[in-house]
Order: sequence, then structure tokens, then C-alpha cells
Amino acid sequence: MPDFDVYLEDRRQQFEEDLCDLLRIPSVSADRRFAPDVRRAAEWVAEQLRHLELKVELIETAGHPMVYAESPPVPGAPVALVYGHFDVQPPDPLDQWISPPFEPTRRDGNIYARGATDDKGQMLTHLKSVQAWIETQGRLPLQVKFLIEGEEEVGSQSLHTFLKENRERLACDVVVISDTSMFGRDRPAITYGLRGIAYYELRLTGPKQDLHSGTFGGAVMNPANALTKMLAALIDDQGRIQVPGFYDDVTPLTPQEREQFAALPFDEAAFQRQLGVNALAGEAGYTTLERRWARPTFDINGIFGGYQAEGAKTVLPAKAGAKFSFRLVPNQDPKKISQSLQAYLEKRCPPGVTMELIDMHGAPGVRTPLDCPYMSAAARAVERGFGQAPVFICEGGSIPIVLDFQQQLGADALLLGWGLDDDNTHSPNEKFRLVDFHRGIKASCHLWEELSRTTV
Amino acid sequence: MPDFDVYLEDRRQQFEEDLCDLLRIPSVSADRRFAPDVRRAAEWVAEQLRHLELKVELIETAGHPMVYAESPPVPGAPVALVYGHFDVQPPDPLDQWISPPFEPTRRDGNIYARGATDDKGQMLTHLKSVQAWIETQGRLPLQVKFLIEGEEEVGSQSLHTFLKENRERLACDVVVISDTSMFGRDRPAITYGLRGIAYYELRLTGPKQDLHSGTFGGAVMNPANALTKMLAALIDDQGRIQVPGFYDDVTPLTPQEREQFAALPFDEAAFQRQLGVNALAGEAGYTTLERRWARPTFDINGIFGGYQAEGAKTVLPAKAGAKFSFRLVPNQDPKKISQSLQAYLEKRCPPGVTMELIDMHGAPGVRTPLDCPYMSAAARAVERGFGQAPVFICEGGSIPIVLDFQQQLGADALLLGWGLDDDNTHSPNEKFRLVDFHRGIKASCHLWEELSRTTV
Repeated sequence: MPDFDVYLEDRRQQFEEDLCDLLRIPSVSADRRFAPDVRRAAEWVAEQLRHLELKVELIETAGHPMVYAESPPVPGAPVALVYGHFDVQPPDPLDQWISPPFEPTRRDGNIYARGATDDKGQMLTHLKSVQAWIETQGRLPLQVKFLIEGEEEVGSQSLHTFLKENRERLACDVVVISDTSMFGRDRPAITYGLRGIAYYELRLTGPKQDLHSGTFGGAVMNPANALTKMLAALIDDQGRIQVPGFYDDVTPLTPQEREQFAALPFDEAAFQRQLGVNALAGEAGYTTLERRWARPTFDINGIFGGYQAEGAKTVLPAKAGAKFSFRLVPNQDPKKISQSLQAYLEKRCPPGVTMELIDMHGAPGVRTPLDCPYMSAAARAVERGFGQAPVFICEGGSIPIVLDFQQQLGADALLLGWGLDDDNTHSPNEKFRLVDFHRGIKASCHLWEELSRTTV
Repeated sequence: MPDFDVYLEDRRQQFEEDLCDLLRIPSVSADRRFAPDVRRAAEWVAEQLRHLELKVELIETAGHPMVYAESPPVPGAPVALVYGHFDVQPPDPLDQWISPPFEPTRRDGNIYARGATDDKGQMLTHLKSVQAWIETQGRLPLQVKFLIEGEEEVGSQSLHTFLKENRERLACDVVVISDTSMFGRDRPAITYGLRGIAYYELRLTGPKQDLHSGTFGGAVMNPANALTKMLAALIDDQGRIQVPGFYDDVTPLTPQEREQFAALPFDEAAFQRQLGVNALAGEAGYTTLERRWARPTFDINGIFGGYQAEGAKTVLPAKAGAKFSFRLVPNQDPKKISQSLQAYLEKRCPPGVTMELIDMHGAPGVRTPLDCPYMSAAARAVERGFGQAPVFICEGGSIPIVLDFQQQLGADALLLGWGLDDDNTHSPNEKFRLVDFHRGIKASCHLWEELSRTTV
């Protein structure tokens, strides 16, 4: 196994300078005025990859361009596909940044800039590890493909299409993504599970126009009253969702998983203070980490109807509605849930009100099997990079692209996050801890070696 | 008893012209650009009263001026106070008017203009009846006081103050108000009951900022979820309000009242069609008219929280809230209800969420006793004016000024509505049926005579 320590120590300054060059490009994908900058970022990434003698292509799409690159095939070794993105969130509100978002600034061991952790800094670790291999070994021990896009922050539409149309070209054994977080400071982690989602909008209509609540109150069903009844019926006071069959397909937490979660140094009191609540809450019988990572939930995301401005208006609203979603765990089927939900709500929609349930989007939860050999390889690489074995964690949110890779390419994803929960992703003063940038590069160097030795 | 028929027939054209003059003044009290027009309307009313040799005063207030006038005292006869208003609602949306709102236009026996029924046309009937007495009899059979304001459509704040500070001057035995509706076309009615109201805003706060519903869903109580549970608990599926003690002080409907309501020619199917609902609904065990007029209700007037715009946002909102109100029936005390409600909601506010209940305003319901002799006098007068005995009805809404008169002056109000339910009050194409304008004047002529003969 090659030792990259001296090489990486020598290149420390240079790699940070390269990161700063990329961070200076305001590649905001949501704002069309920055489209030329998104393209500049794509070209910057492509140029880096070209220097490593990869076959590089700047791919034009209906939106922003993406970069595809591949190193030469290595017979007998698996193929790894690195996914990342060079586009960033808008930097607003600008006045809350301590240093300007596109003037990368070092403070307290961090680099501050929009995109520092999400995802320029994290993504770059894998380019730099390839550079380390090429410059020290003259080769990579396995074939690495890079698919780096510029529309992640606006929905990855072009990537989705590209994946479907380029399955053979993108064929790989495992996907590597660094766009998540560690469990905590100096606590490296591998994320092996993501929750799915089923998102709905419920619209109720009562009378054909808003009515005076004095003249007509008591004569007709108020759709806002009905809405609260129907939504309240979706979950009981123990946090159990009441839609028939909802839990039928839930893969229960294994005793080992519960032990693993329980062994994590999670500080409930600090978490509660961070959120500013007087108590944590959720499904009875599960710990906070279990409820966040591995149990389904019901949350109203928006609720609306009637008069919302200052003061009092005596209106009986004609309409009321809500946006709400369930987070799903592996094996739950959003389509099956939609059907059961529709029937459950229809049964509870009172006379005098009509309902429309809009199925906004759904995605099942995903898991990368913990016993998958690539997972063990990644764990060893992270341990070499960070000097500490990673913990295995889940993420309560959904990363649709992970499911896409699983479905289109049949490859599981290794979610190797080098970020931290307090990196201010999508917020002012986004940062990335520089020591983790360098440890991430080192872990990635070892990842290529460890993966190359893995046979399934 | 004088006969006014010939006189009124002669003046028909003139009275309609006078009404049109007043309707041409755009006295929109809510819009300060129309303040000079509100004043012009006040001066127009004052001028009319001056011609009748009443003692007239244009009273300046912090807002729009009001008009006070009184005829000479008549020893041995009761004193009647006529209340009305010359301000109008804004005419928007203008493009929906068939003829311009301030160009009174006759169509199908109606006069169309903003303020036609609410309240210029109805109010004017009492000025014209006084004119009839003065011009035919040279005197009024009782003392009539007029208090006509210009802030009814914006909350009657100045009137409220004026009432409190001028109790002696305004002293009277009965208040006469024409600002409501008949039971139906050619079905004159006297409104003897109004519901009260208790209006609240409930604000719930969970985490200190909006959270990602994936990352944090299941860990904390969602205030929008809590809101639906708390509001749903306020009323059961039979339409019974669940706040402890809520019904304790309710004056039940008497068997006579229920008979009277049942005898009214109320067309449920037509009412349902008018509102555009597939069913009527409300408290079990009561008819639609009972539920609208004489039973308490719970209605959510507005509900809000989280993401309300297009599409899906996976937010767990930091805050959620609702505006809601109970309609009250006589003898229920809004203050007592507020206390019980506060305790009831606090008990149901789950850990992880804090609540604030804002008591926006409250007013008890009012009844004018059906056996009050002024009521019988009014009924006889209405029968003379309309050729048909009035029915006795209630109104589900609240008219705060009626309670004010009762509390400040100790006088019950006769609510003699000449309008119709489809007069488009507060809406485009407001109208007033001209035959009812004239029958209202005639009824008012007889009202002065009938009241003058009444002793309590």
C-alpha cells in the first residue's frame, strides 16, 4: 500500500490554493445571471481532470453543463463512479456574511466561502486523491469515473436524463459521494441509510365563496375545521401514523442497529438546546436518533386557509389546505401509501366539503448494506485518512440521486461525508474545516487502493 | 291615525331623487382619499334634517363626522332614537359593476349603487317618514332623535366614545335601526336576536427556526401538527364544542321559538344551492335556522404555518397559528369562555411547543324581548307598511352597536330591516328594491304613531 503522507504534506498549500480558485467562481445555478460562472466552474473542473490525463468531456445539457471523465480501465478491479457538484446555493442574505461569499477566507482552521463544504471542497478531495496517485504512482489502481454536475442545487434534472441515457458508459460497481457530514467534530462517519418521502397537498373546498361566519356559521361545514380533523386523524398522540397498512412493509430496526445508534455519543440536551425546544418529541418507544434516521414520520409542511393578515376577520373560508409529507424507511412503497391515504382521507372528508389529494412526489428510502464489501473497504480507508474508524449513521432526509444511481446503474453509494453539521450549508458563512479537507483527500487516496482489492 | 298614502304617492318620485342624490356621494369611510365625500354625506343628511325643523348638529370626531338631531320633546310619549350610517364599503372590484357604483341606476324595480341598501336607502326611510309627519301633520307624535354616523364600515370607534360621553343627551326608550334584511322577498321581518362572538388567535411555537423535515422530522413536535390536534379537539363530530362549561349558561331555545322557526318558509334545498355545498352541516339535533340563529358555533377563520406557495418544500415550520371564533347565544359570557378555553388548550399543548392565546374581542349575544310592547308596536307598523305581518327572526352575526345601546342607554333596539339577502351588501352591484324603500317609509310613518301610543 503506497504511503501518501509526505506527498500530501508537500501539496497542502497548493491544494488549498486550488480549492480557493474554485470557490472564487460564483457558480450559482439558481440564478441565470450566473450561468457563465457555472460554466466557468465546469471548465475549471474539466481542466483539473485533464491534467490527470483522464478522458474528459464537458457535456452540454438543457441547463448547465456537467463534466464527465474516466481513467483507463483496470482489468480485474472494480469501477468506482465519483459523483459531486460544482454549483452552489445563492449566497443571500449577503449582509450576514462576515467575509464575502466568493472571497474564500481562512479563519480558525476553516475556509469560509459559499460552496466550501457543499460541495466544492468535499468533491475536490477525490480529484486531489487521483492527482496523488498519478503523481506518485503514475496510475490508479482501479478505473475511476467522474460525474460532476452543475444543477444539484436546482434539482439535477439534466443529470437524471443523462443517467437514463448513458447506463453503459456510466457502468460501475460502486458510487462514491462526499456531500454529507461526519457524525461530529473528529468523528468520521459513513452514511448507509437515507429516508424516503411521500409528499402531498390536500385541498378542501366547502361553500362556493367565502361566507360571513356570523350569518352562515353553524349551517355549513367549515373546510378549515374539516382540515384540522382530517390531519389530526393521521397520527395519534403516541406519534403512530394511522393510515391503514402504513407500517406493514417497514423494515424494523435490527437489535444490532439499535445497539449501534445507542453507542453513538449523541448529546440529547445539547441537541435540544440547538433547536431551542423545551422537549424533544416523536414516536413512542424509539430514541431520538432512531426517530430521525430509521422511523417514518408525519409532518405538516404548510397549512393555509381563510384570513391570515393582522386583526380579526369573521370569515368562513371557502377553501383550506395543507402540504404534508411522510418520511419513509426502506421497503415502504410510496405508491401503496398514497392509495391507502386517499381512501383514509376520503372516509374522513365530512359532508359539505370536497377533497382533492395531490401526490406531489414520492421516493422510497435507501440503504447501502452494511455487509457490502465496498462498505468495509471504505471504512478502512476512512480510518486511514482520519486516524479513527468511522461510525455508521443514517440521514433523515432523502438524496434522490442516490436512488437514481441504485435504480439506473444498480450500484450502491458510499456516502463519505467530510462536512460538519454546523458548516452553515445553504446559509451565510458556509465553511469547511481545512483539516478535514486534507484528511478527506488522504482517505480518498486509500479508498482507491482498498476498493481495488475488493471483489464481490 | 293619519293616513299617509296619498302624500307618499305624491312624493314617490321626489324621495327616489333624494336617495339618488345621497347615493352619488362616494362616502367610502375606509379610504382617506374619500374623507371629503364622507363629510359631504354628513352635511347632506344634516341639511335634510334641518329642513324638518329638527335641532341638528354636525359632530366632529377623531375620524369622520356624525350627525345628531332631535325633534321637540312630546310629554307623555316615549323617545325613539334612530341609528343609521351614511358611510359605505369600498366599491372594489369596480370591473364587476354593471353600472358604476356611484351613478345610481334603476333596473328591474331596484336602485343599484354602493350604499343603496347598506345603509343609505334604509336609513333614509326614517328621515322621509319624519318629513311626511311634518309636512302633513305639522308635528311628530313623539320625540325622535337621530344619530347617523360615518364610521360604521370601519368599526364605529367615534360613535362608541360619543355614546359613553352623551348618555343623557341620547336618553331614549327604544332604538330604531334599519340595517338588516327581511326574511325574504315580500316577507317583512323583525330581527329580535343577534349572536355574540368570542374571537381568538392561537399562536404555537416549536423550534427556534424552520427546520429540514428530513433531518429533524421525528425528533421534535411540529407546531402545525400540534395545531391541528388542538383545534380538532375543540369540537366533536356532532358539532358540540368541547371546552368545559361552554354550554353551561346557554339560554336554550324555547318550544315556542322552535315552533316559530319551523313555521318559517325556509327552503333548505335552495339555501344549499345558493351556498354551493353538497350538504348542510352543523350541531346535531337542531334545524339549519336554529343552528344559524340561536346555537353557538366554532369556526376557524384563518389558519397558517409553514410553506404555502407553489410546489413542495420539506420544511418543519417553527410556528403555526389560527384565528378562530365562537358565535355565542344570549347569556354566554365571553370572558368566562376565554378562561376555560385557555386552560383547555394549555392542557392539550404538547411538550416541545409553546402556545399563546390572544383574546381578540368578545361580545355577548343580544335579544330584544318578544313581549316588549315596542316590539308589538313595531310589528303593527310593519304590517301597515308592507300589508303583511312581519315574522320574527334572528341574525347569526353580531351588531356590536346594538349591545352598546343596550349597555349605555338601557334601550332595546328594534331591528326593522327593509333589505333582502341578495342585495349584494359589501359586494359589486349592491341594490335596494324600490318598492321596499317606499313600504319602509310608510312603515316608519306608522311606527311613530304606534310607538307614541305605547306605554311601558
